[in-house]
Amino acid sequence: MNLKIAVLSGDGVGPEVILQAKKALYAISVAYDHEFIFEDALIGAVAIEKTRNPLPEQTLNLCLNTDAVLFGAIGNPKFDNNPESKVRPEQGLLKLRKELGLYANIRPIKPFKNLLDASPIKKEVIENVDFVVFRELTGGSYYGEKVLNEEGTFASDICEYSENEITRITHLAFKEAQKRRKKVTLVDKANVLETSRLWRKLVKKIALQYPDVKLECQYIDNVAMQIITDPKQYDVILTENLFGDILSDEACAIMGSIGLLPSASVGDTKALFEPIHGSYPQAKGKNIANPIASILSAAMLLQHFGLEKEARKVYEAVEKAIEYKVVTLDLNPDSRFGTNDVGDFISNVI
Amino acid sequence: MNLKIAVLSGDGVGPEVILQAKKALYAISVAYDHEFIFEDALIGAVAIEKTRNPLPEQTLNLCLNTDAVLFGAIGNPKFDNNPESKVRPEQGLLKLRKELGLYANIRPIKPFKNLLDASPIKKEVIENVDFVVFRELTGGSYYGEKVLNEEGTFASDICEYSENEITRITHLAFKEAQKRRKKVTLVDKANVLETSRLWRKLVKKIALQYPDVKLECQYIDNVAMQIITDPKQYDVILTENLFGDILSDEACAIMGSIGLLPSASVGDTKALFEPIHGSYPQAKGKNIANPIASILSAAMLLQHFGLEKEARKVYEAVEKAIEYKVVTLDLNPDSRFGTNDVGDFISNVI
Ligand SMILES: CC(C)[C@H](C(=O)O)[C@@H](O)C(=O)O
Ligand SMILES: CC(C)[C@H](C(=O)O)[C@@H](O)C(=O)O
Repeated sequence: MNLKIAVLSGDGVGPEVILQAKKALYAISVAYDHEFIFEDALIGAVAIEKTRNPLPEQTLNLCLNTDAVLFGAIGNPKFDNNPESKVRPEQGLLKLRKELGLYANIRPIKPFKNLLDASPIKKEVIENVDFVVFRELTGGSYYGEKVLNEEGTFASDICEYSENEITRITHLAFKEAQKRRKKVTLVDKANVLETSRLWRKLVKKIALQYPDVKLECQYIDNVAMQIITDPKQYDVILTENLFGDILSDEACAIMGSIGLLPSASVGDTKALFEPIHGSYPQAKGKNIANPIASILSAAMLLQHFGLEKEARKVYEAVEKAIEYKVVTLDLNPDSRFGTNDVGDFISNVI
Repeated sequence: MNLKIAVLSGDGVGPEVILQAKKALYAISVAYDHEFIFEDALIGAVAIEKTRNPLPEQTLNLCLNTDAVLFGAIGNPKFDNNPESKVRPEQGLLKLRKELGLYANIRPIKPFKNLLDASPIKKEVIENVDFVVFRELTGGSYYGEKVLNEEGTFASDICEYSENEITRITHLAFKEAQKRRKKVTLVDKANVLETSRLWRKLVKKIALQYPDVKLECQYIDNVAMQIITDPKQYDVILTENLFGDILSDEACAIMGSIGLLPSASVGDTKALFEPIHGSYPQAKGKNIANPIASILSAAMLLQHFGLEKEARKVYEAVEKAIEYKVVTLDLNPDSRFGTNDVGDFISNVI
């Protein structure tokens, strides 16, 4: 297969970890006779510094003209604690999601057998946990109108959802559930929010088209607790943008390290693959960031294009690295291995 | 001291657990020579059934004319899964909070020494955890305008905050921090939401008036994870309504059972005390619901009126019940003790 992949490494540890994902993809291309062409572009704080724009025109065009995007991380503390700064790195990511129509963010949560002890949660609670979060990614309060009055004494954010926005991701979630344990849990706050009531009404209607899938509706506050106390109950979690942001980060606690979690953001035509850990600026350039989340994001990319065998190969190579303890400091405080070593080990196994 | 207390037992297990809180308060009044006068009133689903109004005029008037409200729980599955029902039990609670001006919801999280093993989280992670959540309770998307278009294909919720709403609870949170470990963590999503940026700006300004207190700002998605992976870092968590709803329920996972968590909702003149577990309809009438959350809510009531000694007495009696394993099924699957037994034991110890 021929794939043209835009590489947006972004800020902080983004470049270091994405390099390892590229190595893994290169190893796959050699082993399975594919051709992957990588093209780099700017995004986030580095893009602001060089072009004053967190998503330069050129970057967007590249993404629109490639098969997939491999994304590192964005964010820089320089902007974080300055709510007044008008241009922020995050705007680049949000605009990119919207422009590429990436309406579904998919995050699988399945702890590694050899890492069950790394989690703060007890082994018996998390072993065999296997669920996936479907987070709506281009709607809700991320994109609704924002107001700040002139005196700076009043602010508002609108959370909006339309039938179409809810419907398209709901079908994706139910189709995924059909391939899994056949259960969808809709997470909302229907006892308070009008948007949640719309979600609940529409999702229940769509569920009738999938009689083999069980639908359960739970409140976000309850799920925030149950994801820790009883995570095994979940198969596919479906939810709106902000709730999905919160729950999928929370679910990292199950995995033992946020450095292990990949994600796919997909739409009808485009797809982007990204570790969920963010820019982790304290670690930048130190060769200590965990590259596994990025490498698994590359595996999700392969899977997205139907390269199941290849995706499994990457996943198994990651499992090997964990089994042989070729992991970074976040997973083993005595580790002698850096970002590069882990990446090299994994691509060699491939 | 003379106190007139409105008792709103509400739905589900509300009446059973509130009865135990009343017993504890009665025992305190005898032991310390106070006079507590209780007056019952309707709220929630039971109020809808009897008066078609989740917060009857009479109930509101009673609350406005008493010193404090002891609140059970509201919610009934009959209404839950029917997003179209126009009258919902929750409206009663939301209206009550607004009418009484209860703008700060306070939830202490401090696991019991003898219950560290009951949590799904590892002992070493949660021992010595001791923080308190200050959740804004009468603003945000709970009270902003809600829209559903006629065709039922579009919905929106507005999240609004004004300077005054943010300021008053922020002062409460910083004053509390001064009595504790002198740290406030503001939780927001300032990289996306305008309201969050207003919170951050104003809280930072107010923090200058409390030079002995350290302010930290963290994003909600990050906190949702850190509250599980590193909960010891928190002292006072300050946040808006919906984020506070999510985080304080999530924090229950630390305690081992949601049946242990009390809360106080306070304003400038009124105060309400409530277990956070909700109506738990499956347990109604079975004498299995954990009364400790309600009894500790009564302790928070005592503390609110400066009765520190009395509050401590209740807390110690609860610790005794836990030490002697006089607890309900949620804390000991082999327990022979029901709601009533636990309540009796605790008031006898008092
Ligand atoms: C950086 C931020 C805007 C982003 C989000 O909230 O969507 C991040 O937390 C994520 O989950 O990808
Ligand atoms: C019942 C519901 C409206 C309420 C809320 O969301 O505030 C509850 O979850 C709580 O936290 O007291």
